[in-house]
Amino acid sequence: GMFVDWPLEQLQEYRPDRVEPADFDAFWKSTVEQARAAGTEPRFEPHPTRLKTVDVFDVTFAGFAGQPVRGWFLLPKHAEGPLPCVVEYIGYGGGRGLPHDWLHYSAAGYAHFVMDTRGQGSGGYLVGDTPDPDGSGGPQTPGFMTRGVTDPQHYYYRRVFTDAVRAVDAARGHERVDPERIAIGGGSQGGGITIAVSGLVEGLAGVMPDVPFLCHYRRATEITNAFPYQEIVTYLKTHRDHVDTVFDTLSYFDGVNFATRATAPANFSVALMDDVCPPSTVYAAYNHYAGRKAINVWPYNGHEGGLAYQKASHLEFLAEVLG
Amino acid sequence: GMFVDWPLEQLQEYRPDRVEPADFDAFWKSTVEQARAAGTEPRFEPHPTRLKTVDVFDVTFAGFAGQPVRGWFLLPKHAEGPLPCVVEYIGYGGGRGLPHDWLHYSAAGYAHFVMDTRGQGSGGYLVGDTPDPDGSGGPQTPGFMTRGVTDPQHYYYRRVFTDAVRAVDAARGHERVDPERIAIGGGSQGGGITIAVSGLVEGLAGVMPDVPFLCHYRRATEITNAFPYQEIVTYLKTHRDHVDTVFDTLSYFDGVNFATRATAPANFSVALMDDVCPPSTVYAAYNHYAGRKAINVWPYNGHEGGLAYQKASHLEFLAEVLG
Amino acid sequence: GMFVDWPLEQLQEYRPDRVEPADFDAFWKSTVEQARAAGTEPRFEPHPTRLKTVDVFDVTFAGFAGQPVRGWFLLPKHAEGPLPCVVEYIGYGGGRGLPHDWLHYSAAGYAHFVMDTRGQGSGGYLVGDTPDPDGSGGPQTPGFMTRGVTDPQHYYYRRVFTDAVRAVDAARGHERVDPERIAIGGGSQGGGITIAVSGLVEGLAGVMPDVPFLCHYRRATEITNAFPYQEIVTYLKTHRDHVDTVFDTLSYFDGVNFATRATAPANFSVALMDDVCPPSTVYAAYNHYAGRKAINVWPYNGHEGGLAYQKASHLEFLAEVLG
Amino acid sequence: GMFVDWPLEQLQEYRPDRVEPADFDAFWKSTVEQARAAGTEPRFEPHPTRLKTVDVFDVTFAGFAGQPVRGWFLLPKHAEGPLPCVVEYIGYGGGRGLPHDWLHYSAAGYAHFVMDTRGQGSGGYLVGDTPDPDGSGGPQTPGFMTRGVTDPQHYYYRRVFTDAVRAVDAARGHERVDPERIAIGGGSQGGGITIAVSGLVEGLAGVMPDVPFLCHYRRATEITNAFPYQEIVTYLKTHRDHVDTVFDTLSYFDGVNFATRATAPANFSVALMDDVCPPSTVYAAYNHYAGRKAINVWPYNGHEGGLAYQKASHLEFLAEVLG
Amino acid sequence: GMFVDWPLEQLQEYRPDRVEPADFDAFWKSTVEQARAAGTEPRFEPHPTRLKTVDVFDVTFAGFAGQPVRGWFLLPKHAEGPLPCVVEYIGYGGGRGLPHDWLHYSAAGYAHFVMDTRGQGSGGYLVGDTPDPDGSGGPQTPGFMTRGVTDPQHYYYRRVFTDAVRAVDAARGHERVDPERIAIGGGSQGGGITIAVSGLVEGLAGVMPDVPFLCHYRRATEITNAFPYQEIVTYLKTHRDHVDTVFDTLSYFDGVNFATRATAPANFSVALMDDVCPPSTVYAAYNHYAGRKAINVWPYNGHEGGLAYQKASHLEFLAEVLG
Amino acid sequence: GMFVDWPLEQLQEYRPDRVEPADFDAFWKSTVEQARAAGTEPRFEPHPTRLKTVDVFDVTFAGFAGQPVRGWFLLPKHAEGPLPCVVEYIGYGGGRGLPHDWLHYSAAGYAHFVMDTRGQGSGGYLVGDTPDPDGSGGPQTPGFMTRGVTDPQHYYYRRVFTDAVRAVDAARGHERVDPERIAIGGGSQGGGITIAVSGLVEGLAGVMPDVPFLCHYRRATEITNAFPYQEIVTYLKTHRDHVDTVFDTLSYFDGVNFATRATAPANFSVALMDDVCPPSTVYAAYNHYAGRKAINVWPYNGHEGGLAYQKASHLEFLAEVLG
Repeated sequence: GMFVDWPLEQLQEYRPDRVEPADFDAFWKSTVEQARAAGTEPRFEPHPTRLKTVDVFDVTFAGFAGQPVRGWFLLPKHAEGPLPCVVEYIGYGGGRGLPHDWLHYSAAGYAHFVMDTRGQGSGGYLVGDTPDPDGSGGPQTPGFMTRGVTDPQHYYYRRVFTDAVRAVDAARGHERVDPERIAIGGGSQGGGITIAVSGLVEGLAGVMPDVPFLCHYRRATEITNAFPYQEIVTYLKTHRDHVDTVFDTLSYFDGVNFATRATAPANFSVALMDDVCPPSTVYAAYNHYAGRKAINVWPYNGHEGGLAYQKASHLEFLAEVLG
Repeated sequence: GMFVDWPLEQLQEYRPDRVEPADFDAFWKSTVEQARAAGTEPRFEPHPTRLKTVDVFDVTFAGFAGQPVRGWFLLPKHAEGPLPCVVEYIGYGGGRGLPHDWLHYSAAGYAHFVMDTRGQGSGGYLVGDTPDPDGSGGPQTPGFMTRGVTDPQHYYYRRVFTDAVRAVDAARGHERVDPERIAIGGGSQGGGITIAVSGLVEGLAGVMPDVPFLCHYRRATEITNAFPYQEIVTYLKTHRDHVDTVFDTLSYFDGVNFATRATAPANFSVALMDDVCPPSTVYAAYNHYAGRKAINVWPYNGHEGGLAYQKASHLEFLAEVLG
Repeated sequence: GMFVDWPLEQLQEYRPDRVEPADFDAFWKSTVEQARAAGTEPRFEPHPTRLKTVDVFDVTFAGFAGQPVRGWFLLPKHAEGPLPCVVEYIGYGGGRGLPHDWLHYSAAGYAHFVMDTRGQGSGGYLVGDTPDPDGSGGPQTPGFMTRGVTDPQHYYYRRVFTDAVRAVDAARGHERVDPERIAIGGGSQGGGITIAVSGLVEGLAGVMPDVPFLCHYRRATEITNAFPYQEIVTYLKTHRDHVDTVFDTLSYFDGVNFATRATAPANFSVALMDDVCPPSTVYAAYNHYAGRKAINVWPYNGHEGGLAYQKASHLEFLAEVLG
Repeated sequence: GMFVDWPLEQLQEYRPDRVEPADFDAFWKSTVEQARAAGTEPRFEPHPTRLKTVDVFDVTFAGFAGQPVRGWFLLPKHAEGPLPCVVEYIGYGGGRGLPHDWLHYSAAGYAHFVMDTRGQGSGGYLVGDTPDPDGSGGPQTPGFMTRGVTDPQHYYYRRVFTDAVRAVDAARGHERVDPERIAIGGGSQGGGITIAVSGLVEGLAGVMPDVPFLCHYRRATEITNAFPYQEIVTYLKTHRDHVDTVFDTLSYFDGVNFATRATAPANFSVALMDDVCPPSTVYAAYNHYAGRKAINVWPYNGHEGGLAYQKASHLEFLAEVLG
Repeated sequence: GMFVDWPLEQLQEYRPDRVEPADFDAFWKSTVEQARAAGTEPRFEPHPTRLKTVDVFDVTFAGFAGQPVRGWFLLPKHAEGPLPCVVEYIGYGGGRGLPHDWLHYSAAGYAHFVMDTRGQGSGGYLVGDTPDPDGSGGPQTPGFMTRGVTDPQHYYYRRVFTDAVRAVDAARGHERVDPERIAIGGGSQGGGITIAVSGLVEGLAGVMPDVPFLCHYRRATEITNAFPYQEIVTYLKTHRDHVDTVFDTLSYFDGVNFATRATAPANFSVALMDDVCPPSTVYAAYNHYAGRKAINVWPYNGHEGGLAYQKASHLEFLAEVLG
Repeated sequence: GMFVDWPLEQLQEYRPDRVEPADFDAFWKSTVEQARAAGTEPRFEPHPTRLKTVDVFDVTFAGFAGQPVRGWFLLPKHAEGPLPCVVEYIGYGGGRGLPHDWLHYSAAGYAHFVMDTRGQGSGGYLVGDTPDPDGSGGPQTPGFMTRGVTDPQHYYYRRVFTDAVRAVDAARGHERVDPERIAIGGGSQGGGITIAVSGLVEGLAGVMPDVPFLCHYRRATEITNAFPYQEIVTYLKTHRDHVDTVFDTLSYFDGVNFATRATAPANFSVALMDDVCPPSTVYAAYNHYAGRKAINVWPYNGHEGGLAYQKASHLEFLAEVLG
């Protein structure tokens, strides 16, 4: 690895002008309202495992357009009363995996809600279980970044971000969860979803975006060769006449625009050798983030970021914001 | 490049046992019938270009489930009467492109019908225009090979192969086309589609599969690292419990099974340094092909195969079978 | 990925002749006795974390030559009485990491003892804390495979395997551990260490080697380009006159020779697309393994093997052998 | 891909000082005069094909030093009278291929003259038929960029550019060609040759250099790792004492110097992710181009540039300048 | 590295049928005679250096068609009387370099004649000084392997091998050299030239081909991806109709055919991880070699082979055959 | 290759602030004194070879802590009286090899002392013979850059630099060496050691660091992906909390700090396409070098630098400073 972007001093000052469509709030308001209107009660089915310290539930909740989305819900066994809860979103290509892939937050005493990412979970690591039923839209570059990218109404992340809002709703509604003490988090794509939800859901107690993806798309496509941003490049390499259309769509889904609407305290991370989510795209969101905030800088790391070190930082942060 | 498979002598003898579901014919009969039942008349809209020797039409025809599929139709300008027609299918990742990407067969005096491949056409070269509207199904590996792969009814290539049958129907129905003189062809994925259609449509005058893909999947996944077969590997790397399900599905879509039902004369090609569509997978289909057949072997070529040399071979073949 | 070795049928029958030095047992008997003689009591210091369901201890125990080796010891908080315990060894390049990297077995109700690997833990992922103080010996290829490789007495894995035996001793001696119910396991290098310990320690209840490394070295150096076996190739590429010396040394450390001395029931795994630990080297150990045994074959996986799926298999196995 | 050079704004202003030998014009004047003096009549032999809309001729004309150079000449069959003609030069490594590789301009109603590139045409795609008989000169890096590079008189591109001038002469002299309506074009090396000819031949009606190569060599060798410019780097890496000699030679063959002598209207293209012909080297020539000019910027493309989209742009341009 | 070809036992038995043109001997007899007829006296010009133990001469001798070929001649300073001499040929891409690149054999007390390879010496390491003046012939793949490959009379290695024979003549004619005590050697291409000369020149005292290139071309093109054999693959990938022509030409230049005519004692080397000159192609020549012979097998080496270890072996061999 | 760092003009002015520990001189003074105190007489054992112009001695001298370090000593055979001597240090990964790997300086009439590098010499090229007996310290990244890096007292290069000082002592003490005429040199790591020794040893006659490594570590880790600097990056990627510790240690071993203490005339080299030892790190040392100095700039070379051209430059330099 080597430094892939500007020097840290310059990154810390980088607060680019935002490109925001006039109907950004209206778009998201109606999107979320429609999903909630189409929603049904989430199901939490006890899931038998060999685990002894945690109760596992196989979750199905109503996401975008009321479509079923899967997840895991883990409750520490010996805890009592309503618990603070962490809602977690997953990195690109991964799905909800198996329950024992997610032992971290319940071991720390929190309820833990892991949302499957629709259509994903066949990328070679965490397995997924949720379809993206009406999702393929027009021609797309292999992957998910350009699925429906010519129209904000049909763009893939409209569905994913809505699922993510509804995952918070589902967690909040569980009898063992204290609805005032919800934190959200995730790494890479999970971090991008986290930032989106931070601007769409009120009353969150904490926000933990790690090396977030889905921020400041245009610069990302210009400065890195790495996937998944490269999917957009490949799309525009083919559809040479769609450049404006694509970036218009993406402006509805840019972490930079969600960050400016956030209010909850946040604990970010960024890695200076990260070519997947280049530091300037992370700082673009961080510097626009409107809530109280801090960021861990990992100078000698790539997209893996702080890993267990960052998890330790989050446990400290959660102890503060969730108790 | 280097030889990637068995010696030629062994390839020429390779005729593996076929794995065929009991309801193979029933599955395809009902699939095609449903598509025809849902179909509407194809539209051939004159498309203005700067070309002087050819008339170009922007085609929209009813494919799988009657869904609109795009294409180009090119007619040599100074020809008269009903013409023989070549229906062409496109390689993986490509779309129908622009009309002047397809000047070959009309220059040889044939009508030429180029079918767009649904969902594709954003892969960095030929641009596409056809959505795969209800197509995404369950979790999938980036690409198209595992879209709906857990169920033959929802597998992506059920829709594509049906589109391809209906493309022949559309071409046959055009007033300037002689329905008795239809040849079909394509390279790689286009070759795989060609073989499928050769087993599904009667009365074809010629079949031209070049370095065909979509044949003998299981061996392909075991002997090559190359995409797109690798998409299946990645899927099964994740969904470790879907191996049987996936290969059950794929048995409905295997060129080896279509080839054994074909009757038209065929002109194949294979390349001995082709790691994308390894020679033994091509020969598996070729040696099972039930019609009259010949094959050009390109020993020092990879997946590009014979290119213009192979095109020249096809022009000779067409002169014989179409006149 | 693609299949990197013989067909499965052939692998299942592969039981190569072993090359074993005459003093193999004497060598190991004296090695272990000396370590035990030099040993002091292990220290288990409570380690503060934010975890609520598990008590964490920072372990220092006496390994090879009584040298201090670190580890983590995790106890599920609400369990009572002596517990069965899993001793885990780590993959190449990794160290013991942070405690919350290891939540799996304690969540299943077992005591969990994670042994740091001396000298390792700076490879870019799991951090380590144990030096290999007198270990560098003669010229070595970067890495650990050739450290002291010209002499069995000074070879790196003499120290590591001895540490691993002493880790079992340390776990067995803990007041909360039932010494009759110890299982050992690990992946890759951890799997190789596991096999070594299975032949050196009596009375184990279960053995779980995943995609094990350190088996059948000579064939490994001939059929794979991948590291870390490649370190041996690089060494011999330089020291052209050390071939016999090196393989003489390695015969004292070959999983194939330990396996034949094992008695405990075992649950192996192997991946057919694994070029790091090629399947034939795994089967060489498995087919020589003298205890009751089973193996999970992951056909479409590389060196990652079964991951969470394999963990689930181990939890079933442990439920049987540990209760 | 990612942006490989300066931001577009900076590129648009980039007009570097030119390094031009004092005898540049004299050098080229005598070179071309000698070739014309040594020339014989071009031969256009009818070439049988299966094509129906075009007449194909196998061309042999006298190039540099009167040496025979091959080409294809295609005439749209049903056109009448003298036709405007496009003379096309080919990308690096390619040869004239087969006639049906070149159907584009004749389909648009123009005569089309495709010049083979001496010595090339064995690079894995378009096949070539023209030797470079006395061409190898001193030691050279594999490829053509350093063939004779120590002396402008013997440099490979002296012969190629002269061939290219003589190709225009040959086309102009054909009875079916209107000598006042000649356009020239090509991509990459073909674009570089096009720019050279634009400065050497008078009375051209249009000039179409796509992602041109052979411009602003020195900067190219400093900012890109990609071949073929890398051949010069490899040469100078070996011949450490030839740096000045090499760049002296290249100054006679730099598109920047030809561009400043051009008078015909031009339609350029450049791709911002093109590391083969970096944008600043293209703009160096474009900004010095002395004729009327326009440039298509393909921001998300590499060296493939606009492909069919760019061809469409050229057809519009030709309709304007050739009719 | 890993083993790239058959097991050693099989290699040692591999003695493939030779493909030899009927006029092989006649072809070479007339070629060499013409060169000798066109030859002039070699020039040995004292070359000033800072070296104290060796006298250096800049050699120009008449090679193929009497064309000037360069070389270095080094004489150990304090030796007396006629000396045995080693004539050395250079690996692909390299030239004669600078005199202090060649201190080995003179330090061992031998005269040392280093032949520059025409046209080469710009490949990034050893610099060259000899042109290949009339050498480029028809279209060629970048490199030297296909220069003139359609005709044995014009094939590049006809000129190189003839130069190499004439280099022996030049060395033999030097007053300080004992013409009865000439050994020849070289690595890779130098080894291939060595084998050729061993079959063309009588009375050699020793032959030292290391990891020789230019042997058993056809199998080489089928089993390795590596350059320079890959140049032939690339050529045939383009010129699909030249396969027979090319291998007919190469049969005049195949080490297998020269080896069968050799009489001098030889000291070969081969490396089992060498993908540039795969072991079976080396053994094809070795097993056909008609003189007394031995071979060093370097099992864990790639194309570098034994390097200094092999040099030590040659010094022993030379002490025996040259004294 | 391409330019990997700033433009030459900027490099020539680059003289960064130095980070130097307060006890730098004390640290090195005591280190060297301890080594000398622990030292024994070097042994020079005649080593039989087939070489005739040079006498070879197998050297064992007392290095750091008096530990035995190997080397070769070569004396030109026919020279008389005390000779000037060149002490040479070796590039990363290499060892002292075989004597005939080092014929250069003795051929120029100098005594030549080649120091083996402890622990190295198994990297695939030059073989080594010297252990680093108590050297492995804490966890380390494969390689030597992070061996003991958390403590200057135990850092690997403390031992190597001390060995290097003692090698000069050993050479100076040989009866055939003129102690006033010692030059030192080496490439890459050998160049870094050279600079260190230039600041630690008095009375040197000449200093020849080529493309030196081990200078200006921090910038190196930020701007290049290449090994071996990348070992430090990998270490810090894992040990995220050791950044300050590591750079504190490295400040005792930075060529920039040694250079400022040097007094002897120096002949440097730098390559502008060198990503292993980026030019700015070389110029950081060069511009701080306190003695008379010159530098050869190789613009089109990577880490190989000037090779034989640079050797020729050094021979001129030595003729001046050694006679």
